[in-house]
Amino acid sequence: MKRDLDGLMQERGIDAITISGTPNTSRDLFYFTGPIAISGGRLFKKMGEQPILIAGSMERDEASKSGLKVRTQNELGLMEIARSATNPLEAGVKSFLKTCEKLDIGGTVSFYGTGDIPYSHALLSAIESAGSIKVHVEAFDSILSEARMTKDNEEIDRIDSVSRRAQQVMKAVRDFLGTCSAKGKGIVDPEGREVTIGRVKQMIRTETEARGLVLEDPVIFSQGRDSAVPHSRGDDAATLIPGKTIVFDYCPQETGPGYFCDITRTWCLGHVPDEVMEIYEQVLEVQLKLVDMLEVGNLCSSYDRITNEYFDRHGHATPLRGTAKTEGYVHSLGHGIGLDVHERPRLSTFSKTEEHLAPGHVFTVEPGLYYPDREIGVRIEDDIAIREDGKVTNLTTISKDILVPLS
Amino acid sequence: MKRDLDGLMQERGIDAITISGTPNTSRDLFYFTGPIAISGGRLFKKMGEQPILIAGSMERDEASKSGLKVRTQNELGLMEIARSATNPLEAGVKSFLKTCEKLDIGGTVSFYGTGDIPYSHALLSAIESAGSIKVHVEAFDSILSEARMTKDNEEIDRIDSVSRRAQQVMKAVRDFLGTCSAKGKGIVDPEGREVTIGRVKQMIRTETEARGLVLEDPVIFSQGRDSAVPHSRGDDAATLIPGKTIVFDYCPQETGPGYFCDITRTWCLGHVPDEVMEIYEQVLEVQLKLVDMLEVGNLCSSYDRITNEYFDRHGHATPLRGTAKTEGYVHSLGHGIGLDVHERPRLSTFSKTEEHLAPGHVFTVEPGLYYPDREIGVRIEDDIAIREDGKVTNLTTISKDILVPLS
Repeated sequence: MKRDLDGLMQERGIDAITISGTPNTSRDLFYFTGPIAISGGRLFKKMGEQPILIAGSMERDEASKSGLKVRTQNELGLMEIARSATNPLEAGVKSFLKTCEKLDIGGTVSFYGTGDIPYSHALLSAIESAGSIKVHVEAFDSILSEARMTKDNEEIDRIDSVSRRAQQVMKAVRDFLGTCSAKGKGIVDPEGREVTIGRVKQMIRTETEARGLVLEDPVIFSQGRDSAVPHSRGDDAATLIPGKTIVFDYCPQETGPGYFCDITRTWCLGHVPDEVMEIYEQVLEVQLKLVDMLEVGNLCSSYDRITNEYFDRHGHATPLRGTAKTEGYVHSLGHGIGLDVHERPRLSTFSKTEEHLAPGHVFTVEPGLYYPDREIGVRIEDDIAIREDGKVTNLTTISKDILVPLS
Repeated sequence: MKRDLDGLMQERGIDAITISGTPNTSRDLFYFTGPIAISGGRLFKKMGEQPILIAGSMERDEASKSGLKVRTQNELGLMEIARSATNPLEAGVKSFLKTCEKLDIGGTVSFYGTGDIPYSHALLSAIESAGSIKVHVEAFDSILSEARMTKDNEEIDRIDSVSRRAQQVMKAVRDFLGTCSAKGKGIVDPEGREVTIGRVKQMIRTETEARGLVLEDPVIFSQGRDSAVPHSRGDDAATLIPGKTIVFDYCPQETGPGYFCDITRTWCLGHVPDEVMEIYEQVLEVQLKLVDMLEVGNLCSSYDRITNEYFDRHGHATPLRGTAKTEGYVHSLGHGIGLDVHERPRLSTFSKTEEHLAPGHVFTVEPGLYYPDREIGVRIEDDIAIREDGKVTNLTTISKDILVPLS
């Protein structure tokens, strides 16, 4: 949680942190600013002090909406530096050092944010060479990812609200499909019109917006072979076909943007072929079992190990055995959700960091099995929250029935 | 243009380029991939050869939609590396070097893209230390920005199409405001309902979507004092007030996403106070004059110099004199538009690079004057394209009348 940051800074010997980018592209910056419309900015936070946001003078009003203390580039004399520098890199280095001087920042400064890779590398190298501050980088498992990994109850309530609305959307789609009927190879709506994936996606977009949510990336609504390629978005032109697996993986976020949820259901329209049902029941069994076993203090990776072992016993290729390439269980069990749709903790056997389930964690549990050649893909994904008191709650209550009966 | 890249690589002694990130966050990557939904990837292009996109195995189908040659992490043996590495940085370094080996990439490799700053800095530093390739970074004025700066006629047609649709939206808003009438301090629509900025913005969003466009950032529709803070988005709760300056700065892009346009108009509802008209006429005069003077071969910065001198003569504070902080002419004249809403060329007196107007340039011409204390903000922004044959075209034909008569 945000209140843990000063402690984490002290632990790692960091005197100040600085985050650059835009709130849209850097969720670390967004974590402090919230949804403000600035085209760029830099935040500084000294240990034990409140953060300060540096913004362009033209964007001072938007920057102030963050509720943070704002200093403009003009006030700090950075415009003069930019104008007299011989190139943008020199301007960046001098502006950074000038700001540190004006804000009395020294010692070890740790850099975060999202930016242009060549510029950022050159900037940090040049600041290092200048020698007046010690450049620190955390290439992974940063203190910000650590702080963001645990949510307070207010953050969890926001994710819960997104999840409830997302499930309303998913239910609306399921209900609509239930009003359709088989015709020829595909399905038609009650007015007799063909139902394509593109049409369902349009419905999803409309329902998403109507509930105050937004989709950062196109939704996954994929069928048959596509459903067996986990991140395939699905073919908009394709008609929905009874008996094919449909993977509906839906991760909308608060308008703003803000917090995400991430839910997947697998459906078959009209009937479920036996070979699909066999696979589905295995995924469902392990998913339910895993959710029941979640408990504060347990190693996050242990749940993925259990999943690997379960699927291995049932004859599927798995990452743990190194056999899963495009068939079998081809991903890990889950990931944290928050301001990013993929964040910590990691429920993966291959995680390099020991993470234990803890109060404040919000994450997915999403086993799946994929057989592209057999045109079968199955994934079931719930969102789990551990509240500050340690209580584990499954935020996802929408039906897990694979069968969507047709009319 | 893209076809210039090999020549630019040769000029700067670059044997291969590599771009990482997602198409959404790195427009350099998008320049090659187009709108595909992958959560991350890395592109390599050797001089004289076609680019290759490296993507996750789960995203191979989406990656293929780019039309590029795709290799998956599995095929290259990168998953094994990721699993056996002791941390994500080591995995990143080893994966990068393994890929270079498999694709036979050596010599000087230039890095591009958008990414996590601490990770990227650590990765490039470690690859540098490994010594098998020479790490090259272009902190500014990269060959990609150089290539992207000149558009072929097909790209210009796409920007023109966005611009035409954007102007339809702006006209619809203007027409709607013309049906309103003054009531009390504010205005009401024909049904007698109060018209707030929030309501106008809702209309803009709806009209934008209806024309197949999207807004990456909230639109600027700001009034009075807010209109005098160039990047203020405007207060949704405020009622529109006759006689106040309204700055409507609108930069939608193709759904996908894709190319942007960027247009600004300044309006007064019902009547134009004399002090506003005086300022408006100056901005309009210099804007029209500048657009007429645009010619291939001229220095881009010269137009901003003319603007500074013009405003200076008329008694306004300017950046060139160093007098403009929050009053007067507080920005530069314009910027290129393309896959980014701000790109090269730069029409700024303070530009560090000599850029001359050239065929393929698409850019804004947007002088403005700002007086927050007097609650006056004025900006007029057109989009200009120079086609491959050198013909200068103003893509923006929507009325520049400041007065929007009320009903």
